[in-house]
Amino acid sequence: MLKYTEEYQEKTISTVPVFQGKVISLQVDTVQLPGEGTATREIIRHPGAAAVLALIDGRMLVVEQYRKAMEKFQVEIPAGKLDAGEDPMEAAARELEEETGYRAGKLRPLSAFYTSPGFADEKLYLYVAEDLVKGDSRPDEDEFLAVESLSFEEAQQYIREERISDAKTILAVYAWQIYRLTGEIGL
Amino acid sequence: MLKYTEEYQEKTISTVPVFQGKVISLQVDTVQLPGEGTATREIIRHPGAAAVLALIDGRMLVVEQYRKAMEKFQVEIPAGKLDAGEDPMEAAARELEEETGYRAGKLRPLSAFYTSPGFADEKLYLYVAEDLVKGDSRPDEDEFLAVESLSFEEAQQYIREERISDAKTILAVYAWQIYRLTGEIGL
Repeated sequence: MLKYTEEYQEKTISTVPVFQGKVISLQVDTVQLPGEGTATREIIRHPGAAAVLALIDGRMLVVEQYRKAMEKFQVEIPAGKLDAGEDPMEAAARELEEETGYRAGKLRPLSAFYTSPGFADEKLYLYVAEDLVKGDSRPDEDEFLAVESLSFEEAQQYIREERISDAKTILAVYAWQIYRLTGEIGL
Repeated sequence: MLKYTEEYQEKTISTVPVFQGKVISLQVDTVQLPGEGTATREIIRHPGAAAVLALIDGRMLVVEQYRKAMEKFQVEIPAGKLDAGEDPMEAAARELEEETGYRAGKLRPLSAFYTSPGFADEKLYLYVAEDLVKGDSRPDEDEFLAVESLSFEEAQQYIREERISDAKTILAVYAWQIYRLTGEIGL
């Protein structure tokens, strides 16, 4: 058992809204530390996101796109942010179809996690999709994607080459490896 | 082979600096999309971070702390942001010792990943530490931590209960599971 209790919560003394954007907002909170003293916390608010490990004939679907924050192309599993009030599983199905054209006959929760707990509240809901049926892809108008499928060995090679280098995709490849080793996946 | 090439890079038309904080900064870029049109990209700059899967007698070291962005206590592997110019492996060793008091006899790269590629450039370097030796912990002055060790089964239980719910720690537990199944870990 860990020992932390309410007295270690950081109570908000003040909140300064700094920025409200299309995707994220930023605020700076001043907090009361346990015991004496205060500190500031820079906090990003994000609507949350959904992502899909989509498996078809022993391969995973990935999309390649330019990521401005890193100024490089990245190969990632299909993903996108939640629309207002949207159920994460519906978002996962929607993003899979929009980005790859595939619909999932079977969609199950795999994991859910905060991506950057030190400064952001973004939570990402990860699903595993199987029994895929091909339809038509239709990315967002400011989204330019190339869809591909990777064998497990290719996915591992992409990680070594850092063509895959984001947390959700690496975590999905680990989950896939465990699925291959144990027959079990997800929550 | 994926098909994306330089023509799909998003060229910067303008950059508006919005905020410069202690930990993060925020800028809004306007970019030229492939073909016609422009879009804005909200981008968080972060110095990067290091984290450690520290294994001792078949257990992993974790720290519990209050995470203001989510307004809840979280159990995570030891981690912290990089100091200016700091080598990630040295940061990992430093954070492990500061937060838990343990020094690693053996420290190896396990993974490295971008935490939120859609809006942040934060890269987290993950290491696995073994052959641990106990010293004294000394957290940062605005950091309040409780240190604990978890068996593999306890770690899985914490994930189910969402006491562990951040990407790096779940990814580390997956890597540990693969290590237990295959004897192999890391890059």
